Amino acid sequence: MKYKVKNRIWLEGDNGTFLGNGRIELLYHIHHTGSIKKAAKKLKMSYRKAWSLLDSMNKQAKEVYLIKSSGGSGGGGTEVTEAGLRAIENFKKLDQKCQHFLNEELKKMDF
Amino acid sequence: MKYKVKNRIWLEGDNGTFLGNGRIELLYHIHHTGSIKKAAKKLKMSYRKAWSLLDSMNKQAKEVYLIKSSGGSGGGGTEVTEAGLRAIENFKKLDQKCQHFLNEELKKMDF
Repeated sequence: MKYKVKNRIWLEGDNGTFLGNGRIELLYHIHHTGSIKKAAKKLKMSYRKAWSLLDSMNKQAKEVYLIKSSGGSGGGGTEVTEAGLRAIENFKKLDQKCQHFLNEELKKMDF
Repeated sequence: MKYKVKNRIWLEGDNGTFLGNGRIELLYHIHHTGSIKKAAKKLKMSYRKAWSLLDSMNKQAKEVYLIKSSGGSGGGGTEVTEAGLRAIENFKKLDQKCQHFLNEELKKMDF
């Protein structure tokens, strides 16, 4: 039998979880829909839960990840900042690098 | 704020999870107590649950991880095989290497 190695990573700050898969997915969908409500729905997450995750992220982030955009025909929405987009990219990169590292290490091992 | 990166790894075989933290802890405690019952108790796990994890491991392992030892004053017990001990060691090593890798990668990133 051939085994596969799986991994889950997350970042912690002083107040517990800062970034994890769920939070990154949420940011990603806010970026693509421009709406916390739509993003939460996409992830089958309550709006309340989404808010609590975003609040926890924003409080721990060095720079703010979300800004409220006002005006426009839709009456404004929520925008992910450059720092937020960088967080998404960095997290996914770190996750992929980790997976690659583990795949290579597993090849050298005899379970 | 300084962030820490955390990780959880596990191995999957053709039938789902093969090795994870819980299973490795279970093997470890069986090795140190010589008893599935005592190991399960230590991990606050039901005997039934421990058995199901061990059964899943044994079915997917290339070599058997546990043998029943008979005789002796205690009426025999359960012994972790060389292959089982190697699995514990390999899993812990892989986990540590992964953590070290992630720590180093995080230093290069700007979240």
